[in-house]
Amino acid sequence: MNVSFAEIQGSSSGCFAKGSPTRLVLDHVSSTWGVLVLGTLSEGTRRWGELRRDLDGISEKMLASTLRALATDGLVHREPLASVPPHVEYSLTPRGRELAERMMPFLEWIATNSDDEPL
Amino acid sequence: MNVSFAEIQGSSSGCFAKGSPTRLVLDHVSSTWGVLVLGTLSEGTRRWGELRRDLDGISEKMLASTLRALATDGLVHREPLASVPPHVEYSLTPRGRELAERMMPFLEWIATNSDDEPL
Repeated sequence: MNVSFAEIQGSSSGCFAKGSPTRLVLDHVSSTWGVLVLGTLSEGTRRWGELRRDLDGISEKMLASTLRALATDGLVHREPLASVPPHVEYSLTPRGRELAERMMPFLEWIATNSDDEPL
Repeated sequence: MNVSFAEIQGSSSGCFAKGSPTRLVLDHVSSTWGVLVLGTLSEGTRRWGELRRDLDGISEKMLASTLRALATDGLVHREPLASVPPHVEYSLTPRGRELAERMMPFLEWIATNSDDEPL
């Protein structure tokens, strides 16, 4: 790590302040479901039903609102397919891929350090 | 990035599954306030009042529950001071520092990419 939290906050005025664009994006992506949706889509395009199956415990409503927030932020792309029955495919945008890549060391640390026993 | 989400999930059985230890830690740290508390404490030890001031918009109740969850996970250390009036200092444990370091590229990306305009 070469950059500190203070440096990050100082990089733009009001960074992560209440009501700022940075806080809004942080709210969207920094949630259990935001993280797991981005992680799952980093593996490739998924249909709605596949996301429901892969995301253990997510409700229809929560999946819909998580995907909507990530799409609004330009991180997830929604592609309606001309199929019968109709399907929608979800994938990461280039920006979404950038962000997902930067989350992996964080997720790897949790996977390695919280599995066997309480921290 | 060298490791994929699938590799991380495969590194331990039930990784990020509902009710797993990994999901619990993810729930605690993957929230706006969890991220911002870890980020702020990565700059150094803080008293309660300092955290309240630095964390724009956090309520007393939310700060208390966030610190409690992070302390339970072994990420934050709580040090009561023998002072008048009594004070408590909060700092990152070595594990908390490890995790905070791994969050920085992610926060840096948000700071750089969501400040000026909608993504």
